[in-house]
Amino acid sequence: MQLHADCEPLAFLLGTWRGAGEGEYPTIGGFRYTEEVAFGHAGKPFVAYSQKTKHAETGQPLHVETGYLRALADDQVEFVVVQPSGIVELHHGMVRGATLDLVLLSVHTTPAAKSVSDVQRVIHVEDDGDQAILKYTVAMAAVGEPLTHHLRAELIRQPLV
Amino acid sequence: MQLHADCEPLAFLLGTWRGAGEGEYPTIGGFRYTEEVAFGHAGKPFVAYSQKTKHAETGQPLHVETGYLRALADDQVEFVVVQPSGIVELHHGMVRGATLDLVLLSVHTTPAAKSVSDVQRVIHVEDDGDQAILKYTVAMAAVGEPLTHHLRAELIRQPLV
Repeated sequence: MQLHADCEPLAFLLGTWRGAGEGEYPTIGGFRYTEEVAFGHAGKPFVAYSQKTKHAETGQPLHVETGYLRALADDQVEFVVVQPSGIVELHHGMVRGATLDLVLLSVHTTPAAKSVSDVQRVIHVEDDGDQAILKYTVAMAAVGEPLTHHLRAELIRQPLV
Repeated sequence: MQLHADCEPLAFLLGTWRGAGEGEYPTIGGFRYTEEVAFGHAGKPFVAYSQKTKHAETGQPLHVETGYLRALADDQVEFVVVQPSGIVELHHGMVRGATLDLVLLSVHTTPAAKSVSDVQRVIHVEDDGDQAILKYTVAMAAVGEPLTHHLRAELIRQPLV
């Protein structure tokens, strides 16, 4: 299906990506995970995002999240994403080349969720024509901690089957 | 995979559902759609929700949304859901038999999204052992309109393949 013209700045993200990452946070131990991320579209002016991670050693499912990138004019986007831990995030994003910088507009949690006050995400793709690598970082201010590095991963774009 | 014990009250929703619905709103004309809804789990204390609709006549993709039901004690749940139109909703829910009543905790929209101030959702399943039918309604207060009926659909649980 033809990509919506508004989504052209987001084309560098499209596909299914697999790889590994590592997480840390002051309140928990460090951990390593395997991950699959997908950015897809249906010809409309947004890109669907979904993600799942598994524990690197045990293969146990760890985290999932899902959301949408909304394409605006001038390489700007909005990003809405939801986590089963009861966290929803609204971001404003800026595409610069093959980097998407997401700056939090607001984060909201359900009453039974842990508190989160800030989430900053950066997604960057390096594509040498042979292989594309997606790298992202997530920093988070949660459960009383200030904004702190939390996640880092490198994923490789999977060939279309 | 074994359903997490906390999710037992939500078991009546599990599966993939297909059917048809109709929408209306004071600011737009009435419309009919076909729909697929999925409730799935990965053994954790939440149920993943996703939905997509197509125009009943043209087959054009219309709407998608995705989110999670978080199981709490005493047949209570939290529901977080996100739409590519830039709308995120946080609900508190109560399971009574095979009915899930969702009452909005808060709704948030990105700066470029249309305004939404209330969303009320009810999901009900009728299962005679032979066939299960999921019926839902959505009412919405948006773009200056008061809380008004918006969507109604009936979907049939698909056999596992």
